[in-house]
Amino acid sequence: MTTVNPRILPPTPSATNPPLLIGELLETGVRMAGDNQIVYRDLSRHDYRRFRERVHQLAHLLSARGVGAGNVVAVLDWDSHRYLEAFFAVPMIGAILHTVNVRLSPEQIHYTMEHAEDTFVLVHQDFVPLLASMHERLPLVHGYLLCQDEAGKVDTPLPLVGEYEALLAGQPGHYDFPTFDENAVATLFYTTGTTGNPKGVFFTHRQLVLHTLGEASTFQAPGFELLDRNKVYMPITPMFHVHAWGVPYTATLLGATQVYPGRYEPEMLVKLLVSEKVDFSHCVPTLLGMVVGAEAITSGRVDLSGWKVLVGGSPLTESLARKAWELGIDTRSAYGMSETCPLLTAAILPCDIAEADFETQLPWRCKAGVAVPLVHLQVVDESGTPLPQDGESVGEVRVRAPWLTQAYYKETTRSEELWRDGWLHTGDVATLDERGFLEIRDRIKDVIKTGGEWVSSLELENLISQCPGVAEVAVIGVADEQWGERPAALVVPTDLNNPPSSEAIQAFLKRFVDEGHINRWALPSTIRCVDEIPKTSVGKLDKKRIRQEV
Amino acid sequence: MTTVNPRILPPTPSATNPPLLIGELLETGVRMAGDNQIVYRDLSRHDYRRFRERVHQLAHLLSARGVGAGNVVAVLDWDSHRYLEAFFAVPMIGAILHTVNVRLSPEQIHYTMEHAEDTFVLVHQDFVPLLASMHERLPLVHGYLLCQDEAGKVDTPLPLVGEYEALLAGQPGHYDFPTFDENAVATLFYTTGTTGNPKGVFFTHRQLVLHTLGEASTFQAPGFELLDRNKVYMPITPMFHVHAWGVPYTATLLGATQVYPGRYEPEMLVKLLVSEKVDFSHCVPTLLGMVVGAEAITSGRVDLSGWKVLVGGSPLTESLARKAWELGIDTRSAYGMSETCPLLTAAILPCDIAEADFETQLPWRCKAGVAVPLVHLQVVDESGTPLPQDGESVGEVRVRAPWLTQAYYKETTRSEELWRDGWLHTGDVATLDERGFLEIRDRIKDVIKTGGEWVSSLELENLISQCPGVAEVAVIGVADEQWGERPAALVVPTDLNNPPSSEAIQAFLKRFVDEGHINRWALPSTIRCVDEIPKTSVGKLDKKRIRQEV
Repeated sequence: MTTVNPRILPPTPSATNPPLLIGELLETGVRMAGDNQIVYRDLSRHDYRRFRERVHQLAHLLSARGVGAGNVVAVLDWDSHRYLEAFFAVPMIGAILHTVNVRLSPEQIHYTMEHAEDTFVLVHQDFVPLLASMHERLPLVHGYLLCQDEAGKVDTPLPLVGEYEALLAGQPGHYDFPTFDENAVATLFYTTGTTGNPKGVFFTHRQLVLHTLGEASTFQAPGFELLDRNKVYMPITPMFHVHAWGVPYTATLLGATQVYPGRYEPEMLVKLLVSEKVDFSHCVPTLLGMVVGAEAITSGRVDLSGWKVLVGGSPLTESLARKAWELGIDTRSAYGMSETCPLLTAAILPCDIAEADFETQLPWRCKAGVAVPLVHLQVVDESGTPLPQDGESVGEVRVRAPWLTQAYYKETTRSEELWRDGWLHTGDVATLDERGFLEIRDRIKDVIKTGGEWVSSLELENLISQCPGVAEVAVIGVADEQWGERPAALVVPTDLNNPPSSEAIQAFLKRFVDEGHINRWALPSTIRCVDEIPKTSVGKLDKKRIRQEV
Repeated sequence: MTTVNPRILPPTPSATNPPLLIGELLETGVRMAGDNQIVYRDLSRHDYRRFRERVHQLAHLLSARGVGAGNVVAVLDWDSHRYLEAFFAVPMIGAILHTVNVRLSPEQIHYTMEHAEDTFVLVHQDFVPLLASMHERLPLVHGYLLCQDEAGKVDTPLPLVGEYEALLAGQPGHYDFPTFDENAVATLFYTTGTTGNPKGVFFTHRQLVLHTLGEASTFQAPGFELLDRNKVYMPITPMFHVHAWGVPYTATLLGATQVYPGRYEPEMLVKLLVSEKVDFSHCVPTLLGMVVGAEAITSGRVDLSGWKVLVGGSPLTESLARKAWELGIDTRSAYGMSETCPLLTAAILPCDIAEADFETQLPWRCKAGVAVPLVHLQVVDESGTPLPQDGESVGEVRVRAPWLTQAYYKETTRSEELWRDGWLHTGDVATLDERGFLEIRDRIKDVIKTGGEWVSSLELENLISQCPGVAEVAVIGVADEQWGERPAALVVPTDLNNPPSSEAIQAFLKRFVDEGHINRWALPSTIRCVDEIPKTSVGKLDKKRIRQEV
């Protein structure tokens, strides 16, 4: 890298150059769409002007309870208008928002809250018993603020300071928010790996503002058109999971109507999708699979046509995308991870493909897509050399972008491992084609090596999922004396009483061998039907546990 | 302002956090739309991949000629693919791009080139004689690179180093661009005021990247939809004028097809609008007025319906917007100035107005609009107190945003005047309504004060322009013993042989007095027909010269 000395000119003494702070996003949304609504289940709705006022009130509430700049505020809530308010108010006073993953085990939750040094907690009624069981082991926490949907006293030994709505009501509607360094930490949350304790990742105001601008540009791209002030948005990726992919921030910037569904209950989700005319959601494939498989949808009683769903977390399979399409649901992929804020790539189709029919588009819709603005992405070999962009050469994905976590919180060794050689290592193996379209082939640790050849477990899963009678599938490598490893598949049948035979699935796959899509040695040695496949707390296949079960 | 100490966490030693550099915009465009075209007149066209390659080649060419980081490179060219390449290559090597306003007088041009300390110059054939006359008084310039559209030797004493295309052809297609501080200066140009020498304003890489992201978000907003990779863009605001409002950067980020028309010749402009199917342009009202008044357009021989035009520089009048609409041309306003990069506000219509008919939209289309993302805008009284957002209270517009020039180059006193009290003072007086919609009423120095009451010269111009027989109008205040000042109007008639009488115009205006739009005392005391109204080098009414002529 060349070093140069470009010219930096001093500002005139009175000039100001505002830092990139999260509050800017809210102000823009209010200007663009002050009348648009924030909806919470079938329980409440208010417009953007009131949303801003409530953010100011929450800031007063927190300040009055002794929360100041640099403090860590934990939230344990389902997706709600309250959570959205905390997304803004907590960082805007200079404090750090810790979005607690409520799907972790109680011990892991305790670990993350202690490790994050939480000092104040917003807790939904549902999690009061959980925190009551551990609050004595969280000595730094000096207050618990109750979030409940229905009035009524909660009987608990947890030292609650009051109820969110009741305390908010008494606060002034204007808070004089401070300005400060854009590199101040705004959010913190934990990601679980396959080994060891959860790891904390953190993002600054600058990173979140830039991520939001990059995401906004991506979501407004032709063919995507997911979000603007005329659209209705509802997340189905929890807000504790990488800030619901940062979309609440982007939706706020663009002034979209926002619907928060609370705890994910199938009936409520479907009810809101229909009654609020939701245009856009995002979720993991598993959840989309549940929706398109629900009786109400397949029977045609509920019509979801026109709904756009961005799928991430795990790759979207072609069979799921096709099933959705037949119901009028437009799916597209995006790719990222907790460490990357998360957005890295999005399947914005190449111009010629965008004009083609659905079947031509299908494989492109299921790929990870092109790097979004400001993201540098490479696929490299083991020595760190970029591989040819030929859609064939497989290597690890490494990235640079102005919104990547700069370390794991208080984890020196793992941080350096993540950032070795100055690039963030995703741990994913993929190909890049000549147009820069990324296709994820596998997690590095899930790659199956048989007879010296790499086999993509994702590709096999994609193919097996298209076999009639297969609802879900996971492919892993099992040790083999002769070949090193051999692929093995676990399959959940659509009808538990009438599972497809192993031979039927092999015969189905044979077609792809004959057509040259996969090699003969990629055919699984064993295929086993099971009732359920183990998943992680965010709905991904838990290959570590799957390996233990095979 | 409260001072707080939020948490700043150190990155792990190997982590990188890429600076916001202009090169990122180009990379994104190539990924999104590698096949889209850059068109120059009817002379050349190539795709984005070649565009990138040419930027790399230009960087090599400049480096080989001794241009390095911190040097200032001047460009004197009409709008061209070459200019676009310089927009990227010059800042990307760490040098500063000086976009010379070729419409200034030779002495002013010399002043700006000397003041900017230009060391290398890209010069179009048309300006070779001009520079030949002054190069001995520009001792810092060590090279002049000729830009010409047709082959052929240029006979000149100017020490040319060669021709752009000829020298580019020999350069390697890959340049290893350096990374550096995002606060490095990228561009520099001069703005003329009513008094004194031209003032230099400068913008950093960070500012231009953020401006581009903010502009992209604005231009993709519902109802605007000016730019994306499926759109064709052609500027009709010169590239030396505030980087053609920054739109070439935004168009590149979004991968739009870009058409550069060279010198603005009416026939060529119309030819390109039609043959290239241009979707979007931007220009000053004067230029739009020339287009919609051209015989080829009014006669219907040339159909421009579907063309979207963003109007700025001076306010769009309702009569011009209506005339355009009748030809199928969709106009909208934006507001900004040289010192502000320039975008501050855009007339993104409020949701309810966006759904109304054209006549309801008309006044909104002509207002300045709402502040774009990341812009803070206030209308304040003389003590700096924000006025009520009632659409009535008139005061000065002051702004903060992450893309405002931080000083006038080497002008200590004027810089502090611009930035007094920590806000950039626009010198415009305006109203803000409750939704944050800005309406410019006047330049502070053009406001007419009659009998203690303010009269808006812009409002009067808007009304008089609607009078039959009026082609152009300028209103100024003239000293009056009894009233302090009285409004006076200069009018250019549509038909010089049959000008409207002063009485006819007064009678026309009387209607607006009767309807309560303006006060009786706002009626001009004198109305005079003239052949031409003096304009500045960027096409705005030159009120300083008008005052001298009245």
